[in-house]
Amino acid sequence: MARRNPERRAALLDAAIEVLAAEGARGLTFRAVDQRAAVPTGTASNYFAGREEILTGAGERVYERLVPDEATLAAPFDGPRDRARLVELMHELVERVAAFPTGFLALLELRLEAARRPELREVLTTRIRADLDFNVENHLKTGLPGDATTVKLLWLALNWLIIERLTLPGLLDPDESTDLVEALVERLTA
Amino acid sequence: MARRNPERRAALLDAAIEVLAAEGARGLTFRAVDQRAAVPTGTASNYFAGREEILTGAGERVYERLVPDEATLAAPFDGPRDRARLVELMHELVERVAAFPTGFLALLELRLEAARRPELREVLTTRIRADLDFNVENHLKTGLPGDATTVKLLWLALNWLIIERLTLPGLLDPDESTDLVEALVERLTA
Repeated sequence: MARRNPERRAALLDAAIEVLAAEGARGLTFRAVDQRAAVPTGTASNYFAGREEILTGAGERVYERLVPDEATLAAPFDGPRDRARLVELMHELVERVAAFPTGFLALLELRLEAARRPELREVLTTRIRADLDFNVENHLKTGLPGDATTVKLLWLALNWLIIERLTLPGLLDPDESTDLVEALVERLTA
Repeated sequence: MARRNPERRAALLDAAIEVLAAEGARGLTFRAVDQRAAVPTGTASNYFAGREEILTGAGERVYERLVPDEATLAAPFDGPRDRARLVELMHELVERVAAFPTGFLALLELRLEAARRPELREVLTTRIRADLDFNVENHLKTGLPGDATTVKLLWLALNWLIIERLTLPGLLDPDESTDLVEALVERLTA
């Protein structure tokens, strides 16, 4: 008999994201989620049937929190449709994702856990593929430079750039990182 | 009083890599390493002063095992120096890294752990930066198409391609993945 207070459920999943980022998938227990959410012991188990459900729920919740707001969604349709603008938008994208570091790290933990759990793997694959396809379609609608392949290659490279920033921030200095984003867009849209 | 049998030390680190890939950084204990290496309890603690030393040692060991053999090192200096050859070499590189999946997954676990441990972060940053710089210098010596920026951008995108392959293998189908490597090389060297 799962409880149905959506705000409480979201708060528990937010707590699960923080636990995943701080402790890894193995650290994710009902008790750890309750503690992080500062709710009575037993609360999480009223909302989720098992750890698997918290894991998949946390993955969905990261994407929910990363959905761009209306201004961000509208931005590519405003202003010039040239490479300089695409560079700017890609810088903003990297900043936006990196601004929720625990979300990105939690998703990485979930990917590693997915290598061991087929059901989680299926949920993440569907969710992340939908995100990639949305990005491709949306990009083509904007009329900005680049085709579907451009978007997929940007996605590959920028994801790893964000991993570097969040896990080994000293590896690429900020100027090098900025230059790489610029060169990436220029070359992939040439 | 650390023991000094290099083969035994390497075998313990190989066991640590498997534990990291299977259980995550939190699962890495002296006992788990002993068990995985099938040695008497207490062996790992004769070789390593603490968990931190196993973590950094395992990171080093992954790179040691990924060092290309002489034939692989010589390959880029043989044959044509054109884009088609670079595409071929990048396919081989992806296959070579993906053929040691627990090594790649263990490094990811170490990166996530590095987000929490400054000392580990420093060791990994130095090691991975040296690897990137070696790749850049070596590429320039081969005379294959592409500059230093090409190599860094290949490195970003191919690393994420390997993450996909190992954690969510259904996300990109094999043909899509092959096409992406080809397009990546073509555009980054144009």
